[in-house]
Amino acid sequence: MLNGEKKIARPLRWAMIGGGRTGQVGYKHRIGALRDNTAYQLVAGAFDIDAERGIDFGVNLGVDANRCYPDYIKMFKEEAKREDGIEVVSIATPNGTHYEITKAALEAGLHVICEKPLFFTVAEGEEIKALAEKQGKIVGVTYGFSGNQLLLQMRAMIEQGKIGDIRVVDLQYTHGFSATEQGDKTNAAQKWRVDPKVAGPSFVLGDLSTHTYYMSELIMPNMKIKKLLCDRQSFVGSRAPLEDNAFVLMQYENGAVGRLWTSSINAGCMDGHRIRIVGSKASLEWWDSKPNELKFEVQGEPIQTLIRAMPYLDETCNADERLGALHQEGLTESWANIYLKFAIAIDAKNRGDEETLKNLVYPDINAGIEGIRWIEKCVRSADNGSVWVEYESKKPQLV
Amino acid sequence: MLNGEKKIARPLRWAMIGGGRTGQVGYKHRIGALRDNTAYQLVAGAFDIDAERGIDFGVNLGVDANRCYPDYIKMFKEEAKREDGIEVVSIATPNGTHYEITKAALEAGLHVICEKPLFFTVAEGEEIKALAEKQGKIVGVTYGFSGNQLLLQMRAMIEQGKIGDIRVVDLQYTHGFSATEQGDKTNAAQKWRVDPKVAGPSFVLGDLSTHTYYMSELIMPNMKIKKLLCDRQSFVGSRAPLEDNAFVLMQYENGAVGRLWTSSINAGCMDGHRIRIVGSKASLEWWDSKPNELKFEVQGEPIQTLIRAMPYLDETCNADERLGALHQEGLTESWANIYLKFAIAIDAKNRGDEETLKNLVYPDINAGIEGIRWIEKCVRSADNGSVWVEYESKKPQLV
Amino acid sequence: MLNGEKKIARPLRWAMIGGGRTGQVGYKHRIGALRDNTAYQLVAGAFDIDAERGIDFGVNLGVDANRCYPDYIKMFKEEAKREDGIEVVSIATPNGTHYEITKAALEAGLHVICEKPLFFTVAEGEEIKALAEKQGKIVGVTYGFSGNQLLLQMRAMIEQGKIGDIRVVDLQYTHGFSATEQGDKTNAAQKWRVDPKVAGPSFVLGDLSTHTYYMSELIMPNMKIKKLLCDRQSFVGSRAPLEDNAFVLMQYENGAVGRLWTSSINAGCMDGHRIRIVGSKASLEWWDSKPNELKFEVQGEPIQTLIRAMPYLDETCNADERLGALHQEGLTESWANIYLKFAIAIDAKNRGDEETLKNLVYPDINAGIEGIRWIEKCVRSADNGSVWVEYESKKPQLV
Amino acid sequence: MLNGEKKIARPLRWAMIGGGRTGQVGYKHRIGALRDNTAYQLVAGAFDIDAERGIDFGVNLGVDANRCYPDYIKMFKEEAKREDGIEVVSIATPNGTHYEITKAALEAGLHVICEKPLFFTVAEGEEIKALAEKQGKIVGVTYGFSGNQLLLQMRAMIEQGKIGDIRVVDLQYTHGFSATEQGDKTNAAQKWRVDPKVAGPSFVLGDLSTHTYYMSELIMPNMKIKKLLCDRQSFVGSRAPLEDNAFVLMQYENGAVGRLWTSSINAGCMDGHRIRIVGSKASLEWWDSKPNELKFEVQGEPIQTLIRAMPYLDETCNADERLGALHQEGLTESWANIYLKFAIAIDAKNRGDEETLKNLVYPDINAGIEGIRWIEKCVRSADNGSVWVEYESKKPQLV
Repeated sequence: MLNGEKKIARPLRWAMIGGGRTGQVGYKHRIGALRDNTAYQLVAGAFDIDAERGIDFGVNLGVDANRCYPDYIKMFKEEAKREDGIEVVSIATPNGTHYEITKAALEAGLHVICEKPLFFTVAEGEEIKALAEKQGKIVGVTYGFSGNQLLLQMRAMIEQGKIGDIRVVDLQYTHGFSATEQGDKTNAAQKWRVDPKVAGPSFVLGDLSTHTYYMSELIMPNMKIKKLLCDRQSFVGSRAPLEDNAFVLMQYENGAVGRLWTSSINAGCMDGHRIRIVGSKASLEWWDSKPNELKFEVQGEPIQTLIRAMPYLDETCNADERLGALHQEGLTESWANIYLKFAIAIDAKNRGDEETLKNLVYPDINAGIEGIRWIEKCVRSADNGSVWVEYESKKPQLV
Repeated sequence: MLNGEKKIARPLRWAMIGGGRTGQVGYKHRIGALRDNTAYQLVAGAFDIDAERGIDFGVNLGVDANRCYPDYIKMFKEEAKREDGIEVVSIATPNGTHYEITKAALEAGLHVICEKPLFFTVAEGEEIKALAEKQGKIVGVTYGFSGNQLLLQMRAMIEQGKIGDIRVVDLQYTHGFSATEQGDKTNAAQKWRVDPKVAGPSFVLGDLSTHTYYMSELIMPNMKIKKLLCDRQSFVGSRAPLEDNAFVLMQYENGAVGRLWTSSINAGCMDGHRIRIVGSKASLEWWDSKPNELKFEVQGEPIQTLIRAMPYLDETCNADERLGALHQEGLTESWANIYLKFAIAIDAKNRGDEETLKNLVYPDINAGIEGIRWIEKCVRSADNGSVWVEYESKKPQLV
Repeated sequence: MLNGEKKIARPLRWAMIGGGRTGQVGYKHRIGALRDNTAYQLVAGAFDIDAERGIDFGVNLGVDANRCYPDYIKMFKEEAKREDGIEVVSIATPNGTHYEITKAALEAGLHVICEKPLFFTVAEGEEIKALAEKQGKIVGVTYGFSGNQLLLQMRAMIEQGKIGDIRVVDLQYTHGFSATEQGDKTNAAQKWRVDPKVAGPSFVLGDLSTHTYYMSELIMPNMKIKKLLCDRQSFVGSRAPLEDNAFVLMQYENGAVGRLWTSSINAGCMDGHRIRIVGSKASLEWWDSKPNELKFEVQGEPIQTLIRAMPYLDETCNADERLGALHQEGLTESWANIYLKFAIAIDAKNRGDEETLKNLVYPDINAGIEGIRWIEKCVRSADNGSVWVEYESKKPQLV
Repeated sequence: MLNGEKKIARPLRWAMIGGGRTGQVGYKHRIGALRDNTAYQLVAGAFDIDAERGIDFGVNLGVDANRCYPDYIKMFKEEAKREDGIEVVSIATPNGTHYEITKAALEAGLHVICEKPLFFTVAEGEEIKALAEKQGKIVGVTYGFSGNQLLLQMRAMIEQGKIGDIRVVDLQYTHGFSATEQGDKTNAAQKWRVDPKVAGPSFVLGDLSTHTYYMSELIMPNMKIKKLLCDRQSFVGSRAPLEDNAFVLMQYENGAVGRLWTSSINAGCMDGHRIRIVGSKASLEWWDSKPNELKFEVQGEPIQTLIRAMPYLDETCNADERLGALHQEGLTESWANIYLKFAIAIDAKNRGDEETLKNLVYPDINAGIEGIRWIEKCVRSADNGSVWVEYESKKPQLV
C-alpha cells in the first residue's frame, strides 16, 4: 500500500528530454515521476525540438528558466557543472534518437529512463547494457501499462500454480486511430511513427506490441519463446514497409503456444489491449480498458472477477495499491508504479544495494533488449514470407 | 417477423437418425424442426445405436412405436412402403457415418439434413453433391449457430458498405470443456470426437471451427481465402494426432487477413465464440454469449450496440425475428431459423421453384463442402509444419 | 435436464383464446406449450376478436378449420360436444376479459392458463379460486419470465443460507417503448393497456411489475411485505390516471426493505429487468437481458458469475435445463418451463395426485391473486398521496 | 486538455489538517492538489491527532519538520508569522470538527478546502458562508468523484436538449464494506462514522449519498427538489440511530421524479455508484466503476457508448481531459480536476476576478450547504415515519 511517503532518502533530481507541449507522452512521464514528490523533482529539461517552445513549456511546469535547455547536449554539459545537477534523465523523443541520447546520458554519468522501443537493434541494446554496467547506472524502459498491479496478481497466481501448466498465451494490443492515413500527415506524433528512419523497422509491432510482449514476460517470467511467425500488413499503403497490422504466432519451449494481434487499423476498437493466459486448470484474463478487474476462470467453476485492492489479492500485487477498493485506478497509477521502481532501483544502484536490485521487478535494460528482439524476430519472419523463425531468446529458462 | 404461421403448404414428414437420449445434439434438431409444427412433423426415427433404447425414446417423443426403427437401413426400407412415409431425414450421428447415411438417404429418395462436419473429404462432398442434384434433393448442413439473425445484419451492413473495405477477420470458437482427458473416457459424445476413425482428420477444427468459418462466409459471401496457415496441438496427448487447440492465419484474395482460434482446452472460457470483422471505416463484432447484441464501432464515433428485433435493423435480419425486442432469443431460435429455411428449400425443390432456391440463404451442400475444405487445408498446413498452403477455394469471387 | 421426452402420459388437448396475428403474446404461449409436443397439442382456438382473421390464422397454425371458432363461448359449447374436445384453454386477451372467460372456462370444465394481471380485484381472484377448487381444475398464470432456471438457483441458494439474512430487495422492470404517446394511438396491443376500462386500475404496475413481483416471491417464498408505499406518474398525460412510471418502497415483516421501479418511459433502456437480493453475507443479481448468468457477490470475496447449465448449480435449477452450457437459452425456454409445469399440474389434478401438486413450484391461482393484491396496494398508496399502506398479505410466513 | 502547465501564476502554499497515515482520504487530497505541482505546494500540516506520528508522516511527505504541527491551532498561529506562510488549508478530519476548523481557518485569513459532509446543520453552513464572504475567502468541498469529466458531458448534453425533458433521476451509491459490525470496532476510519457525536445525524446519507446528490446537481443545475421521502435502516443494530442503508424518493418542481439508494451493507457490490437520467427522448447513464464510459440511450436507436477524451465530446468535458483516449483515467484525475478548480477559484478571489469565479463550475460553499440540506431533509423524513417533507431548496430555479 502506497500513500506517498518516501521510499528513498530524498527525491532524485530529474530532467526530461522531449515530452513537450505538442505530444501526449511527456505528461505521462511527469505524472509517473512526480506523483508524490518523494521520488523525483523535475529540475531541468530539454523539452522540445523547438527550443523556445520548450523553454516556455518548462517554465510553465515550474522549472527554472535557466535550466530549460535548447537541447540535451547543452543540458548534460551545463548540469554537470552544478553541484545540484541532474541525476537521472527521461528520454521521450522519437525512437531514432534513443540510442545516441541514452549513450550520451550514460557517458555523462546519468541514470536513464527511456521510451520503448528502446533502440533499433539488439546489438545496440547489448552495447548500451555493457556501457550502463560500466558506468554503474540504471536504464529503465517505460512500458507504461506494465505498472498495473493486477499484472503482478497474474504473475503470483501463475507462480503459485493456480492455473496449472501454461498452454495458450493470447495477447492483443490494437486500436483504430490510424485506420486512415490522415494522421500520418497532420499529426506530428503520428508522422514520425510511420517513417522508418525515425521509427525503426516497425510501426505497430514496436509502438504497441512491445508493451504487451513485456507484460507477458512480467506475468510469465519462466516462459521462453522457441519459434515465432509474423504476418504483417500495411493497409494504408503509404506506410509500407512499416506495418499497421500484424499477427504473430508463438511456440514456447514448454510446448505452449501463443498468438498476438497488434494493429492501429482496428477501426472503432476502444478496448483492444488484452492478455489471456490459459493454463491446464484455469485461465486469467485482463483488459486494459477495465484495469481494476481480473478474470479468473477455473474450468468447471463459477467465473471469478477479482477486484483491485481487495485483501484476497497477493501481497506483491497489493504492495503497489494506492487508492483503496471501489476507487478506480488508471494509467496514472501504472506509470507512477514503474517510475517509483525506477527510483528505488537508482537509489539502490547508487548505494550499491544489489540485494534490492535483484528482487526488484521492473522494466530494466534487459526488458528493453527483449523488446527489440521481439521486433527483430517479427520483422525477420514477416519479411521472409511470414515463416517460422527461431527465437533464440537469451532469457534463462527458470522452470 | 415469424409467428409460427405456415411458410409451406403442409409440414414435411420428418425422421431422425441418431440424436437419442444419451447426447445433447438431437434435442437441438428437434427444437429446430418442431418449433411451430408448421414445417415438420416427427413421424419416424432410428434414434439410437441401442435399438431398444432408441425405440423407448422415440415413443416418449410421441412417435408411433412401429415407426421407431432399430437402424436407418430398416427405416428407409419400411418407410418407402408407406404412402405417408418420411420425406426428409436428419442425421445426428458421429461424423464417420455421415457419408454412407447421406448417400443411402438420397438413394432412398429423401432430402437430407446432416450434422457438420459433413464428411471426411471434399471428394466425398462433391460426389454427394452430384448425387443430390441427380436425385433432385436438398442436403442441408446444421451449422446451428448460423441462424442467429444478427449475422444477417452483419451481412447486410457489410454489403451496404457500412464498414468500408474488409481488412481483418477475427474468428474464435473456444471452450474449456475438454481441458482434461476425463471426458474422453467417460462421456460417449466426447469419446468418438477424439477417435480419428469416427471423427475424421480433426477434433476442434471440425467440431467447432467449421461453425464459425461458415458464419464468416455467411457474413462475407464475397471474401475468398487465398492462403492459410494452421498450427495445431494436442495438449491432452492421448488425442494426437487430433488437435484440441489450433491457430489459423488467413490471407484473403482482396488483401484482407484473418485469424481463427479454436480450442476445447481454453480453460474456464464461457464466452469464447466470437466474430469480429474490421473494415476500413468501422468494425462489427458479435459474441455468441450475447446473441441479441451486435457491436458497430465506427472509428471516431461513439460505439453503437444494436439490439435484436429493433426497427432500425435491416429487413433481411428482422425477417427471422420472432419474440420482439427486450425478449431474449437464444440457440433455439437459431436452429429454428435454419430448419425453417431447410423446409422452404425442400418445398421449393419439390415444386421445382428455382427462383426461391436461388435467393434463399442457408447452409446447403456447398456450405458443407466448404467446411470440409476448411478442415482439409488446415490439417494439410499443420501436418506439413504449419506452413502456408494455397486455399484453392471453389467459391466464385463475387466482388 | 429436459430433452422433450414426455412428462405426462399424453399431450393435453389445448386451445387458445386471443393471441392472434396482430399481437406478440400469442406466439409466446404457443412456443411455451408446443415446445416438445409431448405436453400439449393445439387443437382449437378463438384466436382473434376478428373472427375471420382468427380462423385464417388458426388454419395457418395447423388447426382444423372447423375447430377455429369465432368466439370463446361458441368454442366451449362446441368442444364440449366432442369426445376429443379441449381440456385446457389459454387466455391471451386484454385484461378486462380475463375474469369472465376464466369463469366460463372453469364452468365448462376446463383447466385455465391465463395472462397476467389475472383480474381487476383480489375479490374476483378469491371467487375464481373457490370456483376452480370446486371444479377440481387448475388455474395457471403466465408470468412468462419466471421459468428462467437461474431464478430457482437464487431460490435454492437463499434457502441454503448462502447470502445470510435477506436485508434489501431491489426490483426493476422498465423499458422505454412508451416514452411517447404515439403507440397509444397506433398500436392495438398498446392502446388497450392505457384504457382503464380494459386494462384495469394500472398500466405498468400490472403490465410489467407483476412479473417481477412474482419472481421475487418465487425466489424468496418466505418473505412477506408488511407495508408498502407507491408513487406513480403519467408522464404522457393522456394516460392518467394510469401510470407509465412508478416507484414502490417495501418494508418486509423480517425487517428487510425493498424497492421496485417499473416504467415504460425509461427512454432507451434495453436491459431494465433486474432482480438483486442483498443478504447479510452476500448478494445475488440476475438481469433478464443476460438470462444465462447469475451474479453471486460474497462480501470480501471475488465476484462470482454462475452460468446456466453448469454442474455446480442446484439440482432444482438444472432440472429445467435443456440446451447445455455454452448454449444460450432465452425467453422461449422460460415459457416452455412454466407451460410444462402447468401440464404436470393439470395431469396431477386430473389424477388426484396431490403430492405432486404440493411440491410443484409454478405460478398458480394464488400467484395470480398476489399479483392483483400487489397492484391494489400500490394503487391505493399512490392514490392516497403516496403514503404507506399495510400490505395484509395472506401468504403464510414460513420462516 | 490539461498537461500540467500552470493555470495560475504560482503554486499556492498549502497545508493539510488530518489526512495522516492511518486513513485513506488524505492521499486523495494530496494526489488531487499535487498532481502537477503548478497549483499547490504542500508546505505545512497538522496531519494527525497523534502529533508525533503526524510529524513523522509529514517529514516523509517532504514537508519541513518545523512546519509539521501538532494541531491546527498552532499551525495557524505559527504560519501567520511567516512571510511564506500557508494560504490555503485542506480539512480531512472527522465530520464533527469541520465547523470549528473551517471557522478558525477563515478567521486566520486562509482559504479552506473541506471534506464532505461540510457541517452538521444548514445554519452552520450559512454562518460560515457569511464569514467566508466577509473574509473574501473561498470554501471548497471535496466531492471527490465530481471531477469525472463525463459528468460535464452529461451536463452539456442535458443543457443542449439531447435527452429532452428530464423525467426520472436514478441515483445510487452503495457498497458492502460495512455489512458486518466488525469494522465499526477495529477500523479507526469506520469507527467515528457510526458515532453521532462525530459523524453527525447520518452515516451513509452523509458519507456516501452527498457525493451523488452533488453530482446530480452538477449534471442538472436547473432541477429543484420539491418534496422528498426517506426510509432509513440500521441493519447493524449498534449503529442506530445512524443508518447503514436508506432509500429516498424525490419529486422535482418540474414534475420529474427521482430515487436514491445509499448503503454500506450492499454485500459484495463493487459497482454500486451510478447515475441515470431519463429524459423524454433519451437517457444518460454513468457508472463510477467504468468512469471512462457514458451510455447515451436514445429510444428507438442503437445504444451509444461515449468514451472519455474522444473529439466528439463537448468542449466543456474535454477541457478537463489529460491522458488521451484509450488511456484510462480514474479517481486520481477526478480529484486533480476539482483541486485545480479550487486553485483557480482561490487565485481569482485573490485577484478580485469575479468574472472567472462566476463561470467556474466547482463544489463551493453553496454545494456544501446543499449537501447538508439533503441530509437534514432525509433525516427529518425518516425520523417522522418516512413521510414526505417539503424540500424548501434555496437554489434558484433557472429554467
